[in-house]
Amino acid sequence: MIASPIEQLIQLIARLPGLGPRSARRVALHLMRQRESLMRPLAQSLSVAAEAIRACATCGNMDVTSPCTICADIKRDDSVLCVVEDLADLWAIERSNLFHGRYHVLGGTLSALDGRGPVELNMPALEMRVRNGAVQEVILATNATVEGQTTAHYLTELLASTGVKVTRLAQGIPMGGELEYLDDGTLGAALKARVSG
Amino acid sequence: MIASPIEQLIQLIARLPGLGPRSARRVALHLMRQRESLMRPLAQSLSVAAEAIRACATCGNMDVTSPCTICADIKRDDSVLCVVEDLADLWAIERSNLFHGRYHVLGGTLSALDGRGPVELNMPALEMRVRNGAVQEVILATNATVEGQTTAHYLTELLASTGVKVTRLAQGIPMGGELEYLDDGTLGAALKARVSG
Repeated sequence: MIASPIEQLIQLIARLPGLGPRSARRVALHLMRQRESLMRPLAQSLSVAAEAIRACATCGNMDVTSPCTICADIKRDDSVLCVVEDLADLWAIERSNLFHGRYHVLGGTLSALDGRGPVELNMPALEMRVRNGAVQEVILATNATVEGQTTAHYLTELLASTGVKVTRLAQGIPMGGELEYLDDGTLGAALKARVSG
Repeated sequence: MIASPIEQLIQLIARLPGLGPRSARRVALHLMRQRESLMRPLAQSLSVAAEAIRACATCGNMDVTSPCTICADIKRDDSVLCVVEDLADLWAIERSNLFHGRYHVLGGTLSALDGRGPVELNMPALEMRVRNGAVQEVILATNATVEGQTTAHYLTELLASTGVKVTRLAQGIPMGGELEYLDDGTLGAALKARVSG
């Protein structure tokens, strides 16, 4: 018989993505063995994060301040705005350390089925930022999925009247990619977007 | 730039078994999206568990009470004592719902290298329980590894003088096992321990 607070903990852990009942038990055991060095700090960190984290009123990024660290950073370039589907994409771009402009987090893709229209995705706010701000280029960095591309297409039309340059991430062969193993879609996109050598 | 409380949370999550930096980010995002329904309850549950869980003074099981729920359960059979390496093994046996005696959790296997001798593994306490109690049989349910079997062998000798019956889990073909795919060790053990059909 597993004691109920432990059982409850295991059930909560099992709800995390990529973890099932078996790995949740393993995690719980690991936590119980490292109570002072891991379990307490994790409890504390979760509780701090749950309390402090909020969505940035400007860009939709999650941070402990609003405007967020990125929006408040005066060293970043106001003239480029990168539109991403969600926080994970923003993190991925930030990790690359290749982009130093501002962001706009949509919070998903357009989906009539799931009830996500332009308003739910914060698009009016995006349009206002583009119209009122110092933005000269909007990079649509949505995923290369059907939903992501549909959303990018919609945004291209929405922002056409603002006169601001709208670009998308290039599609093609990923770095280190071997033609033999590429899907037809990627190969087709790479052929179509070929550049002079 | 990931805000520091989020970054800290990700680093703690990445220290859990089976999770790396990538899956830790995924878990953190999931938690942030389900703040009220998952993040807060998990923080609460971890903090309650870290506070309340202790090792049972009798058997070494982890519980919020000492003696633990199993030791305190008057409906369980005092005459059979099952010795396991650690908590995970106790949980596995409890899940099977096939054993209704008492437990003794060693906390590992004998290992000169890691400094785990009989005292570290709570063996004198086990011997005392066997000598003083109502125990009629000790089941050595250590793992079928070299370390587990060495530990079981040591315990067999330690408990020989008590006059109590000492048994081990049977070794053989696992349920559903196909001979073709069995390792030689298991096949050998199954042959050696063959029973009349």
